Amino acid sequence: VTNQAGSSPNHRNSAPAAEGAFLFDRVAVVGAGLIGGSVGMALRARRLAREVVAAARSEETIELALARGAADRATRDVTEAVAGADLVVLAAPISLIIEHLGIAAGVVDADCIITDVGSVKGPIVAAAEQALPHPERFVGGHPLAGSERRGIAAARPNLLQGATWVITPTAVTDAEVLERIEDLVARLGARSLLLSPQEHDELVARTSHLPHVAAAALVNVVAECTRQRADTMDVVGRGFRDTTRIAGGDASLWADIALANADALLASLFEMNASLGRFADALRRRDRETLERLLADAQRAKEAL
Amino acid sequence: VTNQAGSSPNHRNSAPAAEGAFLFDRVAVVGAGLIGGSVGMALRARRLAREVVAAARSEETIELALARGAADRATRDVTEAVAGADLVVLAAPISLIIEHLGIAAGVVDADCIITDVGSVKGPIVAAAEQALPHPERFVGGHPLAGSERRGIAAARPNLLQGATWVITPTAVTDAEVLERIEDLVARLGARSLLLSPQEHDELVARTSHLPHVAAAALVNVVAECTRQRADTMDVVGRGFRDTTRIAGGDASLWADIALANADALLASLFEMNASLGRFADALRRRDRETLERLLADAQRAKEAL
Repeated sequence: VTNQAGSSPNHRNSAPAAEGAFLFDRVAVVGAGLIGGSVGMALRARRLAREVVAAARSEETIELALARGAADRATRDVTEAVAGADLVVLAAPISLIIEHLGIAAGVVDADCIITDVGSVKGPIVAAAEQALPHPERFVGGHPLAGSERRGIAAARPNLLQGATWVITPTAVTDAEVLERIEDLVARLGARSLLLSPQEHDELVARTSHLPHVAAAALVNVVAECTRQRADTMDVVGRGFRDTTRIAGGDASLWADIALANADALLASLFEMNASLGRFADALRRRDRETLERLLADAQRAKEAL
Repeated sequence: VTNQAGSSPNHRNSAPAAEGAFLFDRVAVVGAGLIGGSVGMALRARRLAREVVAAARSEETIELALARGAADRATRDVTEAVAGADLVVLAAPISLIIEHLGIAAGVVDADCIITDVGSVKGPIVAAAEQALPHPERFVGGHPLAGSERRGIAAARPNLLQGATWVITPTAVTDAEVLERIEDLVARLGARSLLLSPQEHDELVARTSHLPHVAAAALVNVVAECTRQRADTMDVVGRGFRDTTRIAGGDASLWADIALANADALLASLFEMNASLGRFADALRRRDRETLERLLADAQRAKEAL
């Protein structure tokens, strides 16, 4: 793959040298961040598409996406990127995915398959099934390959290798569309996990969004407590640092995610409150047996997970 | 250092080859676990004591402590271990430290200095000042060098190198005793941090005990949610695993710690509840600005810590 930007109106990488049995002809990846960039790189490296077209918001990202081999062609114009594609992968942050769905709805061919990689599925799937003229050709997805590192600079062709990729078909989804997305996921080296959008959102609320909020809440408690004396920060050990590592994530991105999954996250916060309450009750009663059982439950579950 | 067990009644390592300006003549380390074993190893490796005597509960630990160079001599008899020592380091789990204080009170010489390495200080310092005939020669300590790994097998001579070692003198503590313990900590390669027992306990409640309980509470929430479908465990990502790593710790040990620091931990659980409540309120009101501010506060504090 030659990685040189070409002439206007689009920047280009040179076309693949050999043609094969491509899974898709033209894939548009809208959003060239960590996931979108890595999907583009993997599609090209594994020769799963004849052409990968990336859409990104800045010239800088476009140049980097091309330089890093995440696309054959890149543009700032979403309409242009998705026109003529037989697969569109929406890979921008959640609120933009919904905006891009609206754009794609007016441009894509009738047989184009559309999927996304957003980390909350309910609102995106609902928007897709409302906005698209052919909602049966949309299926939501969420590859679990996030990182504190973001953007095209962190993308790599094997990011999705071995990852779990949740796919969220509904009663509306065409069976062949689902099959083709499952095939794509497998060919990208990831493992499909089929869940309903609601199952997905309830699950990630607890396994991802709640841990993030809990870590942030914990950091805020400790920040308050160590504010008085700077030297007490030395008491903060590795346990605390690991427990709160994810609290270092981008606040704006996480606010988007939390709001998009507000109901499931609120329910999980309620459960967390109840779970903490069981520890507090046992402590208040100096009930060693219950306390040890709660800790042993967690220890066993931790080993199983 | 030759590492061979000797004849009864005590097992022995051979004496150090050369005598120097030892900081202490005979140090008794009561409890040969991760911390006690590492203190013994460091005392010997750095030639800070003419003789290190370890007390441990099992023959197996005694043999391993000697084989690993954590003591010159080892015994199951605490009375025998502390007799004639000019420094006693109590390094067993919290409840045993208090028991060992009672034993030491009746045996040690009037000028013997006593310290401990327990992770909660209030109850230990109170017990020491009540039980010991010379409470002015006791000062509590807590080297922050814990690990999920426990026991003499995990001990190493440089475990305390660079660690923060909290020392908790009170109005009763003799100034020279404090100075000698500070000197010892420095010679072991650790950094002293002087706090009152209460300051220490309130701080570790938030930086160590609360994170542990929060991680366990979070694991219990997720265990409940993934119990129905085993395949959903694949959704659990690295963020969750890091956040809950410490929940894998020994349940019995942590129940002891939590109960010994129950009041401060309960207060911190109350703060955690309030901190989580601020996120829940913002989510309920779909208040993006507050949500992002709470997350950004945590992000900034995380960077500072």
